[in-house]
Amino acid sequence: MKINGEYYRTIWVKKGDDRVVQAIDQRRLPHRVVIEDLRSAADVAASIREMHVRGAGLIGAAAGYGMYLAALQAPRESEEAFMKVLAADGNSLIATRPTAVNLEWAVQRALREIGCADGIDAKIAAARRTADAIADEDADSCRRIGESGVKLIEEIAARKGGEPVNILTHCNAGWLAFVDYGTATAPVYEAQRRGIRVHVYVDETRPRCQGAQLTAFELGQSNVPHTIIADNAGGHLMQHGMVDMVIVGSDRTTCTGDVANKIGTYLKAVAAHENHVPFYVALPSSTIDWSLRDGVREIPIETRDENEIKYITGINAQGNIETVLITPEGSPAANYGFDVTPARYVTALITERGVCAATEEGIRGLFPHGGAHG
Amino acid sequence: MKINGEYYRTIWVKKGDDRVVQAIDQRRLPHRVVIEDLRSAADVAASIREMHVRGAGLIGAAAGYGMYLAALQAPRESEEAFMKVLAADGNSLIATRPTAVNLEWAVQRALREIGCADGIDAKIAAARRTADAIADEDADSCRRIGESGVKLIEEIAARKGGEPVNILTHCNAGWLAFVDYGTATAPVYEAQRRGIRVHVYVDETRPRCQGAQLTAFELGQSNVPHTIIADNAGGHLMQHGMVDMVIVGSDRTTCTGDVANKIGTYLKAVAAHENHVPFYVALPSSTIDWSLRDGVREIPIETRDENEIKYITGINAQGNIETVLITPEGSPAANYGFDVTPARYVTALITERGVCAATEEGIRGLFPHGGAHG
Repeated sequence: MKINGEYYRTIWVKKGDDRVVQAIDQRRLPHRVVIEDLRSAADVAASIREMHVRGAGLIGAAAGYGMYLAALQAPRESEEAFMKVLAADGNSLIATRPTAVNLEWAVQRALREIGCADGIDAKIAAARRTADAIADEDADSCRRIGESGVKLIEEIAARKGGEPVNILTHCNAGWLAFVDYGTATAPVYEAQRRGIRVHVYVDETRPRCQGAQLTAFELGQSNVPHTIIADNAGGHLMQHGMVDMVIVGSDRTTCTGDVANKIGTYLKAVAAHENHVPFYVALPSSTIDWSLRDGVREIPIETRDENEIKYITGINAQGNIETVLITPEGSPAANYGFDVTPARYVTALITERGVCAATEEGIRGLFPHGGAHG
Repeated sequence: MKINGEYYRTIWVKKGDDRVVQAIDQRRLPHRVVIEDLRSAADVAASIREMHVRGAGLIGAAAGYGMYLAALQAPRESEEAFMKVLAADGNSLIATRPTAVNLEWAVQRALREIGCADGIDAKIAAARRTADAIADEDADSCRRIGESGVKLIEEIAARKGGEPVNILTHCNAGWLAFVDYGTATAPVYEAQRRGIRVHVYVDETRPRCQGAQLTAFELGQSNVPHTIIADNAGGHLMQHGMVDMVIVGSDRTTCTGDVANKIGTYLKAVAAHENHVPFYVALPSSTIDWSLRDGVREIPIETRDENEIKYITGINAQGNIETVLITPEGSPAANYGFDVTPARYVTALITERGVCAATEEGIRGLFPHGGAHG
């Protein structure tokens, strides 16, 4: 997608220096577009942990490129020593974020492909090839999710006779959370391309405001009409018929259709259910964890630093980035990163192979042999 | 209640100068305790509109004192001219916030009492007497709400055998929203007084963060254990059995039990309902609008400036109060102040006359002749 008219992915190998990976440092958006150089697996791990890069697909792609950087720097004296360092770097990458499943999947895939190649140079080439493949497949999956999901928007548009379709989304499951296109946003971008009128209500998504800072930014850059709202407002809008559909993303999906996504998703799902508003989850099959059946019990929920609640960063009147304390200094805060929406609240899943019911039958109907990593 | 160990109400007539009303400027909390002088009805109207003072009961009390200041400054040449100015000042006060019912009620009560007094001096005395009475009654109602509601906490405490009772609250229905004690917080303070262990999850309550800035502040000042959470987190906590009860306040209640309260209350009510967590609304009968039966359709919902979403104020590393932009400059925002929770999601109402079902029968059972302004 584009920033200031120029085409970007969220992560790529640097032009002219293929020992460096570059990514947009998303902590600085929407105020600054900062491109960061990543030179080692440790750089990538830090960038995931501190959320310079974030989002289900982008974390996977970053892990792929992290393994490529690991391969570039691993000892060349023996394949055994080389693979040992890679395994350790892979574990460090996996440990950065516990909820998203793409991270471990990408690391395991890279280790498998690298392990199969003969000789250090071939292993490094395999690491690069795998990282590029993960990124390309992510982009391609998201493009297909757009084609699957746009039909749902088209149906509502037809019913509304040209009035804009009002879509509510939570957090950022946009192209900035993936490599390109996004998941929740892909049907929106595709609708816009087809000339269907859409308007997006963007949950600001506290504590880190990925909606206000990232989704609003990317929709604005693509000229998609949108309105930022407090996370508190969605129920009121649904109650008054102002939301035609909800589309959110997923960080981990059970094979039974339970969805772990940004904290607060569950509240919107329950309100949508009460108000008969269709609630869709857009996801590439790479987010499906085929080993899990009960999301509320089994998906680990990341807790993060309380200072993400107590402090907030923006730009001040002088245009400088500034962090301010918004709570009493002595009050503790708890910071849960994700919640789980049980499948019964999900109208349907939008995947790269089409739309299906949020049930084991629905999912296995589209992915009989498992998904991207079944 | 106390701030830094000293007893305060939220609004009072200045000691030594009874032509001045003083109030805590709540925009500066929790970082600064600023006392503001109010010298005219216009001062009071501005202070309500810009939320130096806010909250159902405090708005009513402020309107009462606003009418007193209006009486002090109204022309003395004739009772007719005097009352005409007072009516106009009253209308300006009412126009400041559309959702809270206490505002209009307090103004009408003041006009009635002032109208009945003979002569300008007697009218001024009546204005003062009425303002003090509204404030005293508000404090007394809140104290009684604490006595009504503490029984619900005691029951849960008995069941939990000494484990702390976890209470979730939204926004600030604390003493800072009233004259003293608060509504949602009154049972908590009473429980603490009785030695019952409680712990409060404080929704930060975007956009204005009255939870993070006011509720956390007042609970901290009273040494009540509490944890600030993002508004997004409550569903996750309820799903995992971490919330024993929800207590919120009300800005306007229909005689059928529908409740208008800070935006986001409805989402918590729906989640509580889904997770079988009791959801209580604490309110003085002064918030009941006896003329309304369908809250979702009939209660006017205030929309406020989009900049309350786009900007946030806190203190920076140098300890200075600073406002920062947290969204793309060009993205619009919508700022709904309240939402309506239909009575079917409300387990019970906690009033100054006891606990009742959120139904017309329940309410009329406690208030057969109407409430404070039936």
